[in-house]
This record gives sequence, structure tokens and C-alpha cells, in this order.
Amino acid sequence: PDVTLDLDRARRCGFPEVIFGEGKPAATIATIFDRLLAAQVRCLATRISEEKADLLRAHFASRKNPTARYNSLASTFRVDPHDAPPLERKGRVTVITAGTSDLAVADEARETLDWMGINVHTINDVGVAGPHRLPARLPEFVGSDAIVCVAGMEAALPSIVGGYVDCPVIGVPTSVGYGANFGGIAALLSMLNSCAANVTVVNINAGFKGGYLAGMIASKLHDARQRPQ
Amino acid sequence: PDVTLDLDRARRCGFPEVIFGEGKPAATIATIFDRLLAAQVRCLATRISEEKADLLRAHFASRKNPTARYNSLASTFRVDPHDAPPLERKGRVTVITAGTSDLAVADEARETLDWMGINVHTINDVGVAGPHRLPARLPEFVGSDAIVCVAGMEAALPSIVGGYVDCPVIGVPTSVGYGANFGGIAALLSMLNSCAANVTVVNINAGFKGGYLAGMIASKLHDARQRPQ
Amino acid sequence: PDVTLDLDRARRCGFPEVIFGEGKPAATIATIFDRLLAAQVRCLATRISEEKADLLRAHFASRKNPTARYNSLASTFRVDPHDAPPLERKGRVTVITAGTSDLAVADEARETLDWMGINVHTINDVGVAGPHRLPARLPEFVGSDAIVCVAGMEAALPSIVGGYVDCPVIGVPTSVGYGANFGGIAALLSMLNSCAANVTVVNINAGFKGGYLAGMIASKLHDARQRPQ
Amino acid sequence: PDVTLDLDRARRCGFPEVIFGEGKPAATIATIFDRLLAAQVRCLATRISEEKADLLRAHFASRKNPTARYNSLASTFRVDPHDAPPLERKGRVTVITAGTSDLAVADEARETLDWMGINVHTINDVGVAGPHRLPARLPEFVGSDAIVCVAGMEAALPSIVGGYVDCPVIGVPTSVGYGANFGGIAALLSMLNSCAANVTVVNINAGFKGGYLAGMIASKLHDARQRPQ
Amino acid sequence: PDVTLDLDRARRCGFPEVIFGEGKPAATIATIFDRLLAAQVRCLATRISEEKADLLRAHFASRKNPTARYNSLASTFRVDPHDAPPLERKGRVTVITAGTSDLAVADEARETLDWMGINVHTINDVGVAGPHRLPARLPEFVGSDAIVCVAGMEAALPSIVGGYVDCPVIGVPTSVGYGANFGGIAALLSMLNSCAANVTVVNINAGFKGGYLAGMIASKLHDARQRPQ
Amino acid sequence: PDVTLDLDRARRCGFPEVIFGEGKPAATIATIFDRLLAAQVRCLATRISEEKADLLRAHFASRKNPTARYNSLASTFRVDPHDAPPLERKGRVTVITAGTSDLAVADEARETLDWMGINVHTINDVGVAGPHRLPARLPEFVGSDAIVCVAGMEAALPSIVGGYVDCPVIGVPTSVGYGANFGGIAALLSMLNSCAANVTVVNINAGFKGGYLAGMIASKLHDARQRPQ
Amino acid sequence: PDVTLDLDRARRCGFPEVIFGEGKPAATIATIFDRLLAAQVRCLATRISEEKADLLRAHFASRKNPTARYNSLASTFRVDPHDAPPLERKGRVTVITAGTSDLAVADEARETLDWMGINVHTINDVGVAGPHRLPARLPEFVGSDAIVCVAGMEAALPSIVGGYVDCPVIGVPTSVGYGANFGGIAALLSMLNSCAANVTVVNINAGFKGGYLAGMIASKLHDARQRPQ
Amino acid sequence: PDVTLDLDRARRCGFPEVIFGEGKPAATIATIFDRLLAAQVRCLATRISEEKADLLRAHFASRKNPTARYNSLASTFRVDPHDAPPLERKGRVTVITAGTSDLAVADEARETLDWMGINVHTINDVGVAGPHRLPARLPEFVGSDAIVCVAGMEAALPSIVGGYVDCPVIGVPTSVGYGANFGGIAALLSMLNSCAANVTVVNINAGFKGGYLAGMIASKLHDARQRPQ
Ligand SMILES: Nc1ncnc2c1ncn2[C@@H]1O[C@H](COP(=O)(O)O)[C@@H](O)[C@H]1O
Ligand SMILES: Nc1ncnc2c1ncn2[C@@H]1O[C@H](COP(=O)(O)O)[C@@H](O)[C@H]1O
Ligand SMILES: Nc1ncnc2c1ncn2[C@@H]1O[C@H](COP(=O)(O)O)[C@@H](O)[C@H]1O
Ligand SMILES: Nc1ncnc2c1ncn2[C@@H]1O[C@H](COP(=O)(O)O)[C@@H](O)[C@H]1O
Ligand SMILES: [Mg+2]
Ligand SMILES: [Mg+2]
Ligand SMILES: [Mg+2]
Ligand SMILES: [Mg+2]
Ligand SMILES: [Mg+2]
Ligand SMILES: [Mg+2]
Ligand SMILES: [Mg+2]
Ligand SMILES: [Mg+2]
Repeated sequence: PDVTLDLDRARRCGFPEVIFGEGKPAATIATIFDRLLAAQVRCLATRISEEKADLLRAHFASRKNPTARYNSLASTFRVDPHDAPPLERKGRVTVITAGTSDLAVADEARETLDWMGINVHTINDVGVAGPHRLPARLPEFVGSDAIVCVAGMEAALPSIVGGYVDCPVIGVPTSVGYGANFGGIAALLSMLNSCAANVTVVNINAGFKGGYLAGMIASKLHDARQRPQ
Repeated sequence: PDVTLDLDRARRCGFPEVIFGEGKPAATIATIFDRLLAAQVRCLATRISEEKADLLRAHFASRKNPTARYNSLASTFRVDPHDAPPLERKGRVTVITAGTSDLAVADEARETLDWMGINVHTINDVGVAGPHRLPARLPEFVGSDAIVCVAGMEAALPSIVGGYVDCPVIGVPTSVGYGANFGGIAALLSMLNSCAANVTVVNINAGFKGGYLAGMIASKLHDARQRPQ
Repeated sequence: PDVTLDLDRARRCGFPEVIFGEGKPAATIATIFDRLLAAQVRCLATRISEEKADLLRAHFASRKNPTARYNSLASTFRVDPHDAPPLERKGRVTVITAGTSDLAVADEARETLDWMGINVHTINDVGVAGPHRLPARLPEFVGSDAIVCVAGMEAALPSIVGGYVDCPVIGVPTSVGYGANFGGIAALLSMLNSCAANVTVVNINAGFKGGYLAGMIASKLHDARQRPQ
Repeated sequence: PDVTLDLDRARRCGFPEVIFGEGKPAATIATIFDRLLAAQVRCLATRISEEKADLLRAHFASRKNPTARYNSLASTFRVDPHDAPPLERKGRVTVITAGTSDLAVADEARETLDWMGINVHTINDVGVAGPHRLPARLPEFVGSDAIVCVAGMEAALPSIVGGYVDCPVIGVPTSVGYGANFGGIAALLSMLNSCAANVTVVNINAGFKGGYLAGMIASKLHDARQRPQ
Repeated sequence: PDVTLDLDRARRCGFPEVIFGEGKPAATIATIFDRLLAAQVRCLATRISEEKADLLRAHFASRKNPTARYNSLASTFRVDPHDAPPLERKGRVTVITAGTSDLAVADEARETLDWMGINVHTINDVGVAGPHRLPARLPEFVGSDAIVCVAGMEAALPSIVGGYVDCPVIGVPTSVGYGANFGGIAALLSMLNSCAANVTVVNINAGFKGGYLAGMIASKLHDARQRPQ
Repeated sequence: PDVTLDLDRARRCGFPEVIFGEGKPAATIATIFDRLLAAQVRCLATRISEEKADLLRAHFASRKNPTARYNSLASTFRVDPHDAPPLERKGRVTVITAGTSDLAVADEARETLDWMGINVHTINDVGVAGPHRLPARLPEFVGSDAIVCVAGMEAALPSIVGGYVDCPVIGVPTSVGYGANFGGIAALLSMLNSCAANVTVVNINAGFKGGYLAGMIASKLHDARQRPQ
Repeated sequence: PDVTLDLDRARRCGFPEVIFGEGKPAATIATIFDRLLAAQVRCLATRISEEKADLLRAHFASRKNPTARYNSLASTFRVDPHDAPPLERKGRVTVITAGTSDLAVADEARETLDWMGINVHTINDVGVAGPHRLPARLPEFVGSDAIVCVAGMEAALPSIVGGYVDCPVIGVPTSVGYGANFGGIAALLSMLNSCAANVTVVNINAGFKGGYLAGMIASKLHDARQRPQ
Repeated sequence: PDVTLDLDRARRCGFPEVIFGEGKPAATIATIFDRLLAAQVRCLATRISEEKADLLRAHFASRKNPTARYNSLASTFRVDPHDAPPLERKGRVTVITAGTSDLAVADEARETLDWMGINVHTINDVGVAGPHRLPARLPEFVGSDAIVCVAGMEAALPSIVGGYVDCPVIGVPTSVGYGANFGGIAALLSMLNSCAANVTVVNINAGFKGGYLAGMIASKLHDARQRPQ
């Protein structure tokens, strides 16, 4: 009675409901997953701690579902219906990080894109203090359907990436830094005020949302390429 | 010497540089436009006051360019090269407002989309206080390439719109409201924390950016439909 | 000497003093409860940790008072005078949550309403990302005396609930979320700026206050129905 | 096309839509009012400047509707259908102000209550610096259905009023004060943190909302007294 | 070399330096105390944790100084020169708290006043939710030289105390509360905006400063009474 | 009916009510003053604009009261009963400013002290950028009963003044500065965090409060010197 | 008496006192300048409005000092002693702006450097949205003694400049932008969190300070080059 | 693949890349160091916890590099190439702290300067509450190339130091203090608003940046003295 699932989500929105793991006991998450799996949904939960992951792993072991897997860097947990067919891959998204300390957030984005069946390429640690690093890798990201740009501290990277490309750049501010970074506010404000017209922003540390939006764009582009008018 | 134009922008990013009108004298803007027009660029400037618009109108009258036009609701100024061919229309973007007080910001988005050559449809004043208003108009926005959702006060609208569609919803928070709206912070935070996975956010009152991102997505989708793989 | 009880509260305000448990040692709370029980008051303390609850349970076990009970979800502790008569139930309040992560705060509201003798109905996990969930349950909440609406993140729910009913909607913002939710500020501001005219707000995570106000309204309505003019 | 009226509001919520006047041209407001009057709705608009009021007055003079009236203290504009029957009065709400500088906000509340047909009593300038002033007037507010308490600066008044009564106290923080009042934030936070359990809060300077909620409670109590169970 | 003591402080300011214990290792504090004791100074350190207190107690036990004492409620540590004469008592300060959760901060004030040799009287738990509690104790505080008023949450108390007396009221905001109390900001702003002209403010949780200022005033009044002009 | 005077204030608090002029029409202030004068009160109003001062001057000219006077630097208005005896002077307060831009706030303090009958000495423009300026004037402020220290920008002055004296230093932060001074927040926080134990703080730009508190202390010290125990 | 000049400043700090013009009447500034000129000081005042400049120009015309000059872009006013020798130029500072809207602040820096006798070079409008613009001008700034980098919005520029050079980069955040730029806070936080180790920051819009610090460094480098060890 | 080193940094910026240790696993840091050492770079990492230091020490012990060393006060880790020649010392920087609680941040600055080969002198605990302490030590800091001034609480020290010297003063605000220090915001704002023209600011607790900038200035001055023009 405490849960009201939205099983119609994939029809309306293209992808099924993803579970926000914070503040939910492992048992609640297991129940939700069981119900989603029964409806043939591939499941993804974000913000899952190691402790909850252990309980979930045990739960799906007891249910003999071998697809359950935890990504401890991204803090995501996934499990598929027993007989789910392999996911066909589509589109092209690049995930770029400013520094190696941004990797956890970036991996939540990458994992989300993987769950959506999107092709992902990652470019790490090309922040602006070494200004030659980003242009050197232009060929790797210039033809993307969408770019997820993950950065903390002053988060200058999305503005610069935006200046090189003709696709949306989804900025994911991170809480990486200290002092007047105020837990990611500095990066968030920086991205919101980007002078590059193609930069949009999601919540601080919201790797999931950054990945989801990029994946939605890539997915629609893939479909448009398949089904020309 | 005070201006360093980026004439290569359209090649790299798909659309040419747009001029941010605030803090620039009309004479500076006129000079920039003259140089852009000489390079055959269709020009758009945002955040242009009535006073600056009068000076710009006079400038282009003296240059016998009849395409100069000011939109006083959107505070935008546009002018095209004398012999620019008519713009071919493409894609489909819907701009939705929560209340009639949000119209100025929404019209900056609409004008930007028009400048990009995108087909735009608008739905006004369907905020949540009258919860039946939005679902009643579902058929008008459900097949959009992207949606720009403009809302002030508590800005609940993008989350709800997001729950109905399979395309990106670009939230544009406005400063409409008073007191603890803090000039749009309430709406901004509301959108950043949206529980709908397909909602992304731009700066407060940034109708231009909201329109630009939606237009970029629609434009790429149009191209993909034309050039299937 | 450190405590100055307000034993006249029930006469002036309709309900006796409730104890705020944070920052008070268990021994102090036990002393306060003993004095309230001696004055024939049904006792409620909020924000009681598991540790303090254990000490309080032991205290009332030693006093042979079997009514002592702890609600670990709501973090409330209650104990009645030995010979308190059963509470007569009155009024009708609905507690609605946006997500399952809001349950702890909602249960503090529900427990407070139970202590006041109010009939409570709960509707959980009907937030806006699945926009069909709330209207589907309209019959369950449309005739309420008052509604307590508990939501975190962007807290769009109270505005929408407000648009369906003719009773006060008391918004309780929660700290559920992360990043730019700023510990509940986003939800608080969202509710304060609600465009629904019948939405009022209490402190972040203040399930107690939300429940208390709804209970006071329901109680007065019950009395008015009993004693017509 | 820019306006989507919610003509069903009175049936769902008990009272018709009220127009938020800020950011709407007088002509738009006149159009909305004409359509509401045609639907036999008594009209109220808030936050109307002297300039807009002049235009609205002229509009309704030309339509020979003598009921149009502007309250320049409250910044409200009202107009009734030509043949609207006199409003029957019901319930009892008290509006209390801390200082004479809070009068404009309080009068918006009083005007809203008057529009709802509620009996209103006002008590002014009884803030805490003169602590004997409030208790001296206890008989005037102690039996209220609801109290609207309007205060700026440190806004201590609602907590004290709350301690004397058994009805909801709706705090309306004002921006009265200077410096670290931060445009009403000090008063808002003070009310949100009230140690009185029956204090709830609306937006800064939101006299309309404070009045509306109190009026809704008084109206329901009146109806309950008329139609006993 | 890391410490530069201000041994002249008592001559200039009337009282010697007090040690701020946070962020200083116990060994550093012990060294400072040894040097102050050698200069015949009565020592006080504030914000001393239990762990540091244990180390300091051991240090002074080894030095056979029996005057070392820790107050775990106030988190203060004191030690006197071996042969310090008894302190003569002077003046009259009242410390008033709004709630029992404010006691730790109030006791830091009381301990500071004790160290200064001031007569202190305390009145606890007379916050405004029970509005009769404070006036009932008027005789206990009306003739004070200065009042320290310690309150969290909405901190209405100092304004009301201020309205009853002709002496300075030093408000000490505490971090007691939750949610929108923002760690004491609500209480701080409330006190800064007090409409009572005789209320001044110190830092959040700064019991030391509140006590020190009240003690300085009482001490000067005592001296003035002894040495008439 | 809109005003509830506190004519008992002088008996309780030592000095009569002072009128806060902001947000009150001149006519209201004139009425209040007439009633206070009838009760033989010397009147002071703060935050009076030039426009209101003109109206008040005309009012008292028509009443043939020659004592009405406006201080346009301090924005204060004063008027005495016709036959008020000359004020006897007492105590010693020093008002110190950091820069010449702080003079308006400082003069509100000085005018308040003058109204209280206190001897005031002022020292201007001795901020820390010229560190020799303050110590050079030590003899002028070292024996004060209390010091009012008025400073904007980083407001370092009160901490330094505090280190030289044995009396309370009442810091009045001003909004002087720009950018990250945030309208006086920088100065306010600086003073609240002063490492000098004898510094206390009032609201931003609250010259009135700073003067009032210093005057109250000086007045009590004067009385103590006159009436030894 | 309201002014306490620091005539010793040039000896201690290398350059004489500069006058902060805000909040000082023109007459006060004229008096200060007269006294500084009498002491043979070259005078500079910042933040001078057109109105004050007119009064100052008239003043120095009447004193027959032809050196008085106002820079209306920078809002600075300068005047030299009648017989001041020509300033010898030294060092090399580059002032770089992100956009043309930052020019006013940049010109305050440039004017300050000119007053200090420093050689200044300016590079305008090379913000990151056109990422090729800055590297194209590397030869112009790579050998600077210090760089002043003036930027609003997301202020990414200083971090990138910092990555190219071996000299201090002094970031001057501007209030250019709108919405979530919060009057320059976004730019300020961005610069404070710069991942480039050689970026330091001054106040929002503090062109004066940025220029002064760069000038001080260039001046010391010049002297070191002249007087080798 | 997760790391993109900037091995060209020393050529461009004068000093090689320093590793920000927070959020990077020890193994990642060890890998980075190995690669830097292979390129003959002297390595420095900041914000290294005791746990990571233990792992790094073990790593370099296994690699038989005896130069690895951890500074637990500064939280820095350093290691040099096996055969690195001794560092030649140059320049003169003074690091000044306000209180002993600021030592950890100051030592990060000192360690950074040591790594850069700069001569450093430290002066501790000379904050303004004891105003004679700083001037007494003037000879120790008056001829510095640059000064790093580390202070928490109200951070008045840099303004005063700035008034005594002709070199840049780099303020490093610390989070030392409590309550309204807001984790260092008070100190940061204080320094940003310094009325001393030669004070610039880095991030809260950014001892590294403060040291780096001072070292860069001292290094350039040293080179200028060696290579006169
Ligand atoms: N002064 C006011 N403060 C807050 N809400 C208001 C105010 N006046 C009207 N409203 C509400 O704002 C809603 C949306 O207004 P509108 O922008 O007119 O469509 C209305 O339905 C009213 O409930
Ligand atoms: N709890 C406290 N709150 C604020 N200031 C304090 C506290 N305890 C001591 N102080 C002051 O802090 C100053 C500097 O402390 P220290 O860091 O010990 O040199 C002392 O001179 C005291 O005036
Ligand atoms: N400039 C001022 N700043 C703060 N408080 C003031 C000021 N002027 C008067 N007051 C106080 O404000 C209280 C309430 O003022 P009023 O709004 O006039 O009833 C008075 O009792 C005074 O103590
Ligand atoms: N535009 C400015 N921004 C910041 N500080 C300034 C500015 N102009 C002058 N100053 C400094 O402000 C100090 C105090 O100024 P004053 O208020 O004129 O006494 C001067 O010594 C200058 O160092
Ligand atoms: Mg790196
Ligand atoms: Mg509407
Ligand atoms: Mg759910
Ligand atoms: Mg009054
Ligand atoms: Mg209590
Ligand atoms: Mg000066
Ligand atoms: Mg440009
Ligand atoms: Mg010390």
C-alpha cells in the first residue's frame, strides 16, 4: 500500500520508471523490482549503498535471477527479467569529465545510458587547467547525438565543449571541490550561466538525469534515422 | 577593437552567434549587426529595450534594410541580409506557459525558434491550479520533438508535462511571483529537483536558451528524418 | 527547575503540550511525562531516537504503565495515564505523500492525528511523475476536512491536490532529494509559492505541525457539526 | 488565446478564480473579468497598481457596471455581475497586525475575506515591544474561527497569539523592516519555526493567501454549524 | 612559537584572555594554561570536548592543581592558580532560556559569568508558546543589570523580555530546532530584527559572548556603585 | 484605530517609544506625535524622508511648536512638548566610524544618544587601511561607558576597538560597499564572528539601536555613580 | 573633522590612498583632493557618477587645475598636482575581458593601472563560447607580469587563461548576466573554485582592486629588474 | 584511461601539476605519481587523509623511493624522483595566522611554498583581539615579496597587514569558528570586502592556492633580480 507503481510509464515516456534508492529500505526496493520484473520491465535503481546492494543481491540469488548486478562506483543496481532478449544498441552519446574525482557521477550517467541501450563513449580528466587536453580529443566527441558534461569546482568545461559542437550539452554539476564550492552550488551556477547557447543543466550530482536526457535525444535521433519521412 | 566576433559559429554549432543586448550600447550592437550581415548572417539580439530598438530601427532605416523588426513583448530585435532567401520550416516544438504573466519569457523562446526556422506551437495559461487544463490539451503537445515549459511561482508544470511525453522538456523558470519566489529561485530549484526524468533546466527568464536547445533538438531530428541511415 | 510546564495548554488551545524530544536527555523527558501523566494528560513526544525510546520504555515498564509505545518510523513516543478512557474518534483528515521516501515524515503527521483522536486516511506515492495516479484516487480525499500533503524534491503535489478540493491543504516539505534540494529548501519554496490559493505551509519535515493543524481544523468542524447554531 | 480560464473552480474549490494582477496588462485583466462576469462570477484581482486601476475603472464605467471599486491600500480591484444579490455574511475571522506598517498586507487579507463573505474583525499595532497590548484585547480574538496574523521584522506575534487560542493561526510574514530582515525572510523563517503548534505560514506579503485560507476554514465551520450531522 | 599570548588583556579589557578550545590540541591548551597560571591568571577555556577534558584533567592532576574542573553541559574547562584568593561576587545578571533544549548554551553563559565573579540567576523554559510563563516571573528579572536571553527556533523571547525591562538584553540565538531553522539562522535573524530597542545580538550558540558582555556591564555598574562621583 | 500606543514604555524601559518612520504616512506620524506630546513625551522618529519631514514641519508650524527639527543626514525628526525643561546631560559614549561613507548611520546613533540626554563624542574615518589612525586617538575613547562602532565593507574596526577597551562595543554594520558586501551582510557576519569578546551586534544600518543600547548602558552607569550603594 | 586622511600611505604601501567615491558628497571629495594635492599626491577617485564629476570639474576649473579629468566608462576621476612631472611607465599588465559587456569594469582596472604608471595592454571579448579566440591571441598576453581577467556570467575565462601562463591571474567577477548570476555571485564562485592554481579573486565589479594588485606586482618586478641583487 | 596528465604544465606555468587528493583512491594517486616521477617531476598531493598516506607510503617503500613523506598537519604528501638534485631556495614569503586554530591551513601553504623552493617565514596567532601583537612583529614581514594571511572568524587580519606593506597580501579564509561563520563564508566575505587595496582572496581553506600564488610572485621577483634588464 506504500507504493503506487507507474507501470504505464514506458508507453507514455519511452522508458520505464527508474527507482530512486535513497530513503527506501532494501525490502521495499526488492518488492518494487519483483513487481516490475513480473511486468517484463528491465530494472534500474540509483543511489544504492553497498549495504542495500548486499541485501538485493541475496534477494535475487534466492529468486535464481542471475542478471542482478551492482555497480559500486555508480551506486546503481540492475536486474532484468529472466528471459529478456539482448538489448539492441543505438545512438551515440559522449560522457566527458573535468577531473578524475568526477568519475562516480559520470558512471551513473554511463550506466543509465547503458540501461537505455545507447552507445556511450567516455573522455575523462580533460578540465580546463590543461587547456590543450580537450581540443586534442575533438574527433572523439564532435559527431555526438548529445554530450553529458560532468564537472565540479568552477565547471568551466561545458561552456567550452558547447563552443565546439552542434548538439545539446547536458551539464551535470558535481559537489567535487571544497570551501566556496558549497557542495556543488558553484558548479551549478556556473553551468546555468553558461555563455554557450546549447548548454542545459540538471541537478547537482544528477548523473542519472544527465544520462537519461542524452539517451532520450539519442534514442529519438536513432528512430528518426530508421524511419525517414 | 572592443568586439571579437565568432563568425565560424554556424559551421561549428549549427547556428550563428546571437547577441546579448544587455550592457551594450545600441551603437555597438549596430556595428556587430553590420559585420554579421556582411557575412550573410541572419541576426538576432535579445534583451533589447524600447530605447535601443528605436536607435537600431533608425540605423537600419538609414541603411535601407526593411527586414529590421523589434518584438517588444519578447524584447528581441532581428534583421536579415537584404537578399536572404525565405527560411524553410522544420521540426516541431511546443512552448507551454503556466500563466499569462509568463508570456514575455515564452515569447523570447518562440522568437528564437522562429529565427532558427523551427515550427512552433504555443499553449498558454495551463498551470496546475486548474488541473484539468493541461490534460485537455494533450493532443496538441504529445508528439513534439521537444517542449519548452515556462513557469514561475512554484513551477510545478514541467514535472507534470514531463510525465506525459517521451521528449525532452526544457524548463525555463521565470521570476513571476513575489516574496519567497526570490526572483525566480523557487521556480529554478523546483525544476532542478523535478521527479520527472526528462526535465532539464536553463537560467531564470532564459527564454532564449530554452528555445535554442529545443530548436537544436528539433533541427537534428528533422535532418535525421531527411537523411536516414 | 529546568522545566516550566504549561499545564493550562489544553484549556487554552484545545490540546495539551507535546514534547520536542531533540536536545533533551531521556531522563528529562521521563520527568516531564511523569508530571503530565499525574495531571491526567495523554503524552506525545516527537523526534525520539531509538536510544531514548529504549530508556523511556524501561522507565515506564518500571512504573508498570503498559501504554508506553514507540513508533520507530515516525520517531514518536506515546504514553497515556493508566486509566485513560478510550479516545472517541472524530473528523476526517487525509495524509497524501508524493513518494515512498516521504513516509517517515507522513507517519509523524498520522501519529499526531491519532493522538488527537482524528480519523486519518493515507494515500501514498502519488507524485506527479505519474500524473494519472492522483486523479485516480480523487474519491478517497475529496471530502476531507483538511489534507496534509507531504512531498520532497520539487514538491509539486500540494498545488495539484489544492486544485481539486475545497478544504485547506497543509504542505509539509521534506528533505527528500539531493543536490539543489538543499535539505528541503526547494520543496519549502515550492509550497510557499503555490499558485493554489488553499495551500499553506509548515517547517521542513514538520510532520507534527502538519498533522496538528489539520487535526485542529477537523476537530473544530466535528464540534460544529455536533453543536449546530 | 493567451488565457485559459478555470470556470469550474468554484464548484471544485468553493470559491472562483482570483486574478493575480502583476505582469498582466490592464486590457488582459479587463478581458478576463468580462468573461468571468458573463459566467456570473464576482471578480477579485490582487496586486493592481493605481495605473491599472484607472484603466479598469474606465473600462467598467464604459460598460455601465457601477460595482467596480479599487482599494488603493490593499491594491485590490473588485467588480460584481450587475445583478448579483447581496452577499450573506458568515463565520468569524480576526486579522491582527504587529505594527501600523503592516496595514497594506493586512488589508489585502481583509478585502479577500470580505469578497468571500466572511465577517472580519481587525486588531492593529499590538506587537510584542509593548507586551501588554495583546493580552488586553484577548476577548476580541479568542473565539475566532481562524486568525490571520500579519507581522514583519522578527514576527514574534503569531507564536504568542497561537499560545492563547484553539484555532489555526495563519502567519503572513511582511517585508516591513530593513537590513537583515532581507525583504521578509527573517519574518518568514521566524513563523516557520514557531514553537506554537497551531501556526502555519504563507508567502511573504501574501495577504491574499492568508485571508483565503482563514476564509475557507470559517466558511466550512459556518456550513457545519448550519448542517449538523 | 605557534602561540602568541595576550597577557596584557586584563589590564586593557578588564578580564584576561579566554581560550577558544575548538581546533586546538589538548597539549596546546595545557601549555597556554600553564603560561597563564604562571602569570597568576584564572583560566577559562570554552568548547572543550569530553576527550580533551580528560587529557587536561590528567595534566593538572600531574601538576597537583586541584582547582581544575570540567563542566560537560557547558563544555567549559577552568583552572585557577594554586593560591588564588576566593572571588568576590558582584552585580546581578539573569540568564533566561526559551526551552530546556537551550540549556547547554545558557550554561556556557552562566559559567562565563561565574568565572567573571558575577552573581547569576537563571530562569528556564519560559518560551512564548506558554505566554503566561514569563510575566509570572517578572519579579525575578526586572531589576537585572543585564539579561542574557537564550533561544532557538523563532527566538521570540528576547523581544518580549526587552519590552519589560530597562536594561540591555543580550540575545544568544541557538541552533535548537530543525528544517528551516537553518542551524540557528532563523533565531539569529529574528533577534537582529527585534522591535524592542534594547535587544542586541551575539553569534549563534555564543553563550560565552552573551555571558561576557552581560558580565562586563554588571561589573562596570558594580564599580560605579562602589565609587560614586 | 490603526495605532495602539505604548504610553507606559518610559516607566518600564527607561525611555519612551521611538517611532519607526518607514511605511507610515506623514499624517499617521503626526497623529502619533500629537498624542505623545499630549502625554508630555519628547518625540523621536527615525527613517524619515525629506518629503515626510516637510509635511511634519508644516504640521508643527501650524501647531506653533518651534521645537520640531529634521536631521537630513540622520533622517531623524524630533519634537518636544512646548514647555519641556532642558535635558540634563549624563554618561559618556563614543561613536567611531570606519569611513566617511558610514556617517549617515553614525549620525542616527548620535541623534538617538542626544535625544536620550547622553554626552557623545565622535571619531570619524579611522578604518584599518590606515592602521595608525585608531591608536593615535586612543585617549579620546578609552574611558567610554560604551562605544558604538559603525563600519561597512569588511567591518574589521569593532574587533580592533574591542581589543583596546574594557567597555561594551556595539557594532553597527552598514551597507557601505558593493558586490560581495551583499548590502551589509559581509559587515554583519564579520561583527558577529568578532574574536573580541566585548563586541555585540545590531541590525545592518541600525544606528538607532546601536545608539539606544549604548545610551541605556551610559544612563545606568550615570545613575549608579549618583546613587552609590 | 569627518575625514582622517592617511598621508603616509605611499611610504608604507608604495601608492597613495585612492578615494572610494560612493556615499561621499562631491564637496567632501573635493576637500580630500585639495588636501592630497597640497601634499603633492596624484589623485584618483573611483565610483564617481556623472553628477559628481560635473561638480568636481567645476571645482578644479575654479582652482585653475587643468589636469582634472573624468572617465565616464570607468566612472573614475583623476587630478594631478599642477606641476607634477610626467609619469615614467613601467612593467607590463594585460587586461582581458570575456565580453563587451564587461568593459566598464575592465576600464576601471585599466585606469587604475594608468594612474600607477604601469604599461597596460587590453584584449576584449574573447570568452569561451568562441573557444578559438583566446589561443589566437596568446602572443599578446603570454609574457605579462600579471593578468587582470574580467568576466561575468559563468566566468570560465580566468581558469583557461591561467592554464596558459606563469604569472598571477587576478580574476574580477562582474555582475554581467541575469537570473541565476545573482548579481555576480555565479562569476565570483566560479573564480574562487578555479582549478587553475594561479587564479586569485577580488570583489565583484572591483576593477580598481584587480588593477591595483596587478600594478603592484608589475611595479615590484620592474624595480627588481632595475635593482638586481 | 581515467587520467589525462598535463605533463607540459611546468613549461607553460612555471610549476608542474599538483594533485588534488580528495575523491581519488590511493591507487589512482600512486599511478599518477609514478607517471610524474618517470617524467622527472617533484610530486605534491594535497588533501590526503592518514589512510591514503599509509597506502602511499607502502607503495613508495615497495618502490624503494625514500623521499616519500606525509605532513599530517597540512594533509600533504610529497615524493621526489630518486635522483632529484637539492632545491635551490629563492624569494621571501611570510605566512601569518590569526589564531592557532588556523595552523593546518597555514601549513598547507607553507608546504606548497617549500615544494616550490621558496624561503618561508611564519608568524602565528597575531589576530586583532590583541592589537599590539601584529605591529610588534612588523620587522619580520615588512620586506616580504608576498604575504599569505590565514584567518577565520571575522578575518580582520589581512586588512590590517595590508595597511603596513607594499606587497600583495593573499587572504586565505578558514572555516575556523562556529555559528554565523557559516563554514568560512564570514571570513571569505570579509576578505573580499577588504578596504586595503592590496588584499586578494582565494577559496576557503585553500592554503595550497594561497601558497602557490605567493610563491609564483616570489619566484618571478627572484628571477627578475637575477636577470636585470
Ligand atoms: N496575491 C496573490 N498571491 C498569490 N496567489 C494569487 C494572488 N492572487 C491570485 N492568486 C492565485 O494565482 C492563481 C494563478 O493566477 P493567474 O496568473 O491569474 O492565472 C490564481 O488561481 C489564484 O489562486
Ligand atoms: N566560545 C567562544 N566564542 C567566541 N569567542 C571566544 C570563545 N572562547 C574564546 N573566545 C575568544 O576568542 C579569542 C581568540 O581565541 P584564541 O583562538 O584562543 O586565540 C579569545 O581572545 C577570546 O576572546
Ligand atoms: N530605526 C529603527 N530601527 C529599529 N527599530 C526602531 C527604529 N525606530 C524605532 N524602532 C523601534 O520600533 C518599534 C516599533 O515601531 P512602530 O512600528 O513605530 O510601532 C518601536 O517601539 C521602537 O523601539
Ligand atoms: N573601487 C574601490 N573598490 C574597493 N576599494 C576601494 C575602491 N576605491 C578605493 N578603495 C579603497 O578603499 C579605501 C578606503 O576608502 P575611503 O572610504 O575613501 O576611506 C581606500 O584606501 C582604498 O584602498
Ligand atoms: Mg586531472
Ligand atoms: Mg491564469
Ligand atoms: Mg514512487
Ligand atoms: Mg506601533
Ligand atoms: Mg518546555
Ligand atoms: Mg577614508
Ligand atoms: Mg562577444
Ligand atoms: Mg590566540
